[in-house]
Amino acid sequence: MPLWVLGGKRDEDLVLPINSSLSVTLHQDQVSLKTTTTAAVSKDFTEDRIWLNGREEDVEQPRLQACLREIRRLARKRRSTGDEDPLPLSLTYKVHIASVNNFPTAAGLASSAAGYACLAYTLAQVYGVDSDLSEVARRGSGSACRSLYGGFVEWQMGERADGKDSIARQVAPESHWPELRVLILVVSAEKKLMGSTAGMQTSVETSPLLRFRAESVVPARMAEMTRCIQERDFQGFGQLTMKDSNQFHATCLDTFPPISYLSDTSRRIVHLVHRFNTHHGQTKVAYTFDAGPNAVVFTLEDTVPEFVAAVQHCFPPESNGDKFLKGLPVRPTPLSDEFKAALNVDPIPGSIKYIIATQVGPGPQILDDPHAHLLGPDGLPKPAA
Amino acid sequence: MPLWVLGGKRDEDLVLPINSSLSVTLHQDQVSLKTTTTAAVSKDFTEDRIWLNGREEDVEQPRLQACLREIRRLARKRRSTGDEDPLPLSLTYKVHIASVNNFPTAAGLASSAAGYACLAYTLAQVYGVDSDLSEVARRGSGSACRSLYGGFVEWQMGERADGKDSIARQVAPESHWPELRVLILVVSAEKKLMGSTAGMQTSVETSPLLRFRAESVVPARMAEMTRCIQERDFQGFGQLTMKDSNQFHATCLDTFPPISYLSDTSRRIVHLVHRFNTHHGQTKVAYTFDAGPNAVVFTLEDTVPEFVAAVQHCFPPESNGDKFLKGLPVRPTPLSDEFKAALNVDPIPGSIKYIIATQVGPGPQILDDPHAHLLGPDGLPKPAA
Repeated sequence: MPLWVLGGKRDEDLVLPINSSLSVTLHQDQVSLKTTTTAAVSKDFTEDRIWLNGREEDVEQPRLQACLREIRRLARKRRSTGDEDPLPLSLTYKVHIASVNNFPTAAGLASSAAGYACLAYTLAQVYGVDSDLSEVARRGSGSACRSLYGGFVEWQMGERADGKDSIARQVAPESHWPELRVLILVVSAEKKLMGSTAGMQTSVETSPLLRFRAESVVPARMAEMTRCIQERDFQGFGQLTMKDSNQFHATCLDTFPPISYLSDTSRRIVHLVHRFNTHHGQTKVAYTFDAGPNAVVFTLEDTVPEFVAAVQHCFPPESNGDKFLKGLPVRPTPLSDEFKAALNVDPIPGSIKYIIATQVGPGPQILDDPHAHLLGPDGLPKPAA
Repeated sequence: MPLWVLGGKRDEDLVLPINSSLSVTLHQDQVSLKTTTTAAVSKDFTEDRIWLNGREEDVEQPRLQACLREIRRLARKRRSTGDEDPLPLSLTYKVHIASVNNFPTAAGLASSAAGYACLAYTLAQVYGVDSDLSEVARRGSGSACRSLYGGFVEWQMGERADGKDSIARQVAPESHWPELRVLILVVSAEKKLMGSTAGMQTSVETSPLLRFRAESVVPARMAEMTRCIQERDFQGFGQLTMKDSNQFHATCLDTFPPISYLSDTSRRIVHLVHRFNTHHGQTKVAYTFDAGPNAVVFTLEDTVPEFVAAVQHCFPPESNGDKFLKGLPVRPTPLSDEFKAALNVDPIPGSIKYIIATQVGPGPQILDDPHAHLLGPDGLPKPAA
């Protein structure tokens, strides 16, 4: 889950960003945030194939091909350097890949990042590659390189034209800040706003503010954010997270034609968070928004029950009251009338679909249980998948 | 109506902006956009008094006092320079002021700009002041100094600390571009978003993007905008207007806490305008947003019927279909199904309350008809007012 959203690319092909970024890897034991991938190679396979959520997809898509090329290159390199090879498989063998993610499509969460990170990690196992996988994952989806690690991860933009130094690095492990919690506020689907497919690339070309931000604002903020994480300074961490999310969306608005990811509901969440913090006289919760209206809220364990109660007060569940809270168990605390008054919002039922409560988690894991594998002995997806 | 919105002040007290700006003065023959002011001085008046829309207001409010101080200073100066005085009145006389504006409060249009420009102009008549009134109006409301002139007006930010060179200047008269039309899309009141009273001043203090914009982006854009107006280049005029409106709102979002003036309806209007232009392969309409969700759309006379039809298609009037179009008469042209498809929006009934069609207009006018005056012989507001 990006703490800092990617601000466009300086090289579309190599997927090189115009600024460094930082993200938090979310825990996968929670509902709806997991990607599972199985890959197998065999001399019997006649072609590379891939199945996503049970449906076969075009294996020729350029980004997937770039990942395969890159992992095979690393595998070849590894052999040529004479390291003994644990898996005597031919690199000419075709690969079958099956991947399943249970991300709510509505949520528009960074599922491609998780997907390509998982793919890169899985392929590395199959091909016995143990070098840095940043490039393999990055070729698939830029931010995926950050998801190769658990905890707090920095994607260093790098300077080289070939992108060899544009890699992910763990700033702190998932165990570093055990009290930190992440609440994903999934906003109900609203009537389509921008039909525009214009992405961040347009921003790089048209927004004068974006380049200024990348060159003159982000570097200092990266250093400051790293310090906040290392010192577990939630005040600094929270404020910087909100400021940077706002500035990212400001550059989207400065793009021409403008890009608006935030909806009125997103703005009401922003308002709620600031009111909540003002009421407490300190930054107890912080929001960040990716390329969509859903809010990712950071807070500390002891604040979760009260903040969730505030969200329920301002955005009462419409029908699915029972399914409103997913993930980590949360027991909302009743709010005082004075607090409700301080929040000063007109409750809008149903505008938030549900909340996923989770925390910082580890990177990709190996599933030993064969039942968890998605490909059967025949190299085809199991009926289950 | 600001073409370019004020980006915050470098001096709150003197009301000095951090960047120059440009605006279009709207015609006052149209419904709902007029301010009328009458002022009278008399030895019989025991105190300065002011009535707005018939209700007496506190004459002590600092901005009003600043205007009165400034106009009296100019009047005194004029005499000391020995110019003969057409009005042998004592500057010690108290003044009575009555002002009426029929701006729809909902519209949140720049009524204070019109109000203070009208006040400065009226007081100048009463006190026989014929020097530049920029400072008198500016002290009341910054952007008011632009409304002292008709047509296209630039507010030069100036450099002097005392603000003496922060004045308004007409770039072109109202007769310069007769085909230009202005449509004000008044957005229906939506549930309150930001309770925040934080204004642009917070932006100056907290937005890194705002200062960059003021110093590195606006100066070149001012020169370019002036050229577009002088050459009646609608393509350039329209694109720059939209880009600058977007960038202004981007700096609001970069403010901490963030300020959001645009609503989902505003964004739908933005989307509609870009689709409309894309369909025509050129910039035929352009939007700008002030400190609120209402859109001010610029276009040329021959495009009005089709664009208004597009607005009616995307934002069907809910009940007041008859009162949906105000101001200049407009006969919307039917849209082809192919065009409707190209607009690609889900119609949302009632989200636009009504449209005011108007054009560029002159500055303040003197009303000779005594019936139009708001103060009676007794120096008190007429029952009518």
